[in-house]
Amino acid sequence: MITSTSNSQVKQAAALAKKSRERRKTGLFLVEGPKMYEEAPAEWVEKVYVTEDYVRSHGEPDGPSWELVSDEVMRAMADTQTPQGILALVRQPSWTLSDVWNGENPHIIMLETLQDPGNLGTILRAGEGAGITGVIMNRETADVFSPKVIRSTMGSIYRVPFVYADDLAEAAAGAKSRGIRLFAAHLKGVRSYDQEDYRGGCGFLIGNEARGLTDETAALADCYVKIPMLGKVESLNAAVAASVLMFEAARQRRLPV
Amino acid sequence: MITSTSNSQVKQAAALAKKSRERRKTGLFLVEGPKMYEEAPAEWVEKVYVTEDYVRSHGEPDGPSWELVSDEVMRAMADTQTPQGILALVRQPSWTLSDVWNGENPHIIMLETLQDPGNLGTILRAGEGAGITGVIMNRETADVFSPKVIRSTMGSIYRVPFVYADDLAEAAAGAKSRGIRLFAAHLKGVRSYDQEDYRGGCGFLIGNEARGLTDETAALADCYVKIPMLGKVESLNAAVAASVLMFEAARQRRLPV
Repeated sequence: MITSTSNSQVKQAAALAKKSRERRKTGLFLVEGPKMYEEAPAEWVEKVYVTEDYVRSHGEPDGPSWELVSDEVMRAMADTQTPQGILALVRQPSWTLSDVWNGENPHIIMLETLQDPGNLGTILRAGEGAGITGVIMNRETADVFSPKVIRSTMGSIYRVPFVYADDLAEAAAGAKSRGIRLFAAHLKGVRSYDQEDYRGGCGFLIGNEARGLTDETAALADCYVKIPMLGKVESLNAAVAASVLMFEAARQRRLPV
Repeated sequence: MITSTSNSQVKQAAALAKKSRERRKTGLFLVEGPKMYEEAPAEWVEKVYVTEDYVRSHGEPDGPSWELVSDEVMRAMADTQTPQGILALVRQPSWTLSDVWNGENPHIIMLETLQDPGNLGTILRAGEGAGITGVIMNRETADVFSPKVIRSTMGSIYRVPFVYADDLAEAAAGAKSRGIRLFAAHLKGVRSYDQEDYRGGCGFLIGNEARGLTDETAALADCYVKIPMLGKVESLNAAVAASVLMFEAARQRRLPV
């Protein structure tokens, strides 16, 4: 049992929780809690740490590589204030653009400089529910492997393909060449978002929380749409805007042909 | 100019930022930043505090009751890490249920024990955009006047009527007596949410982030609906679920009769 917070494994876990650079260097990320551990694909899990209390109530973890840690060590490793007794180092998946726009009628999301980890995780979670095939993000978007994003995905991190693209324009061109029509919610949009057809391959461009899409990225869209807004609301939270669009696409795709 | 952080006004502002009890006692809440100050109804504003830098770049505030504070004092008063130079004490509105279900076809939200301030503020913001007439919450829902909720509303706090109800069942009965049909997104829902008609008076019940609606509150609904979910997603973030439902109602209400 690891009981010292100066143990190198403890330091590594803490660094994975805090530092994007450590995650990039090692290709690992940290997941916490029984739900996030159990949903992790077994072949992604590198190492599991559990407290004695956890083993008493949940039994030993399935995987071969697990270790007991004291409660104090668990607190030192974890990102949350009240750790749930289990924590795993998980290997980062490496998806490709072909995974993102997989299938006959791809439904993708492109994110430009989305900053809030909660928004990013929420978009992956809602996106899985709405049946998106994947997410493309620019490099300025928040780190998808940060603990707050991971938590907000509620497990969708394991199932929704995502790619950081060096160049959104190039990725957009690739999407279009596969017949994906790109839509941007934009002030210049004339028609309401629910007047367009999303049953074929489609993608939604979502911009930064404060500034929206840059003109350059908005110009990648085949079509601007508006989300009609009552009251004095100027814009929606990015995860809400993405969800309204994604679930409209899901609604249309359920309609009888 | 106030330069001492032990000044009683400084302590009051800091207490309003941190303590729900202080907000209840005084009937005030704190708003920060030029946008939130400018959107505040003038008659709600009790007192404004600004830094010299703020006055130099924005001019003096409009209201009669404002005071200069040092940068250090502003930091002590504010809830945010990097205050934007203006902060106001604002009187809490007191809406009634008649305000909430105002108009010919009310569109309301009922929240049960919603805990996350960001979700609560996001629902008010998205709700205003979707044209809701108001929000009813049980007492266990987060304090709508906490700084994080206020920020997330992006100004909707000034415009969307809301009421904390001692008894959701009583409020639901009142809504029904005014012809409002109540819907709950629920596992028992058979029909998809987009197959119901929300063009008349309608309301959506939204439950706690982790536990959903209690059986007792779910039973207040006239109709259970489901939000069809693909992948392995079990539920949506509360603000996303509320937004999907509210914007479906908004979409239907735009359709030609």
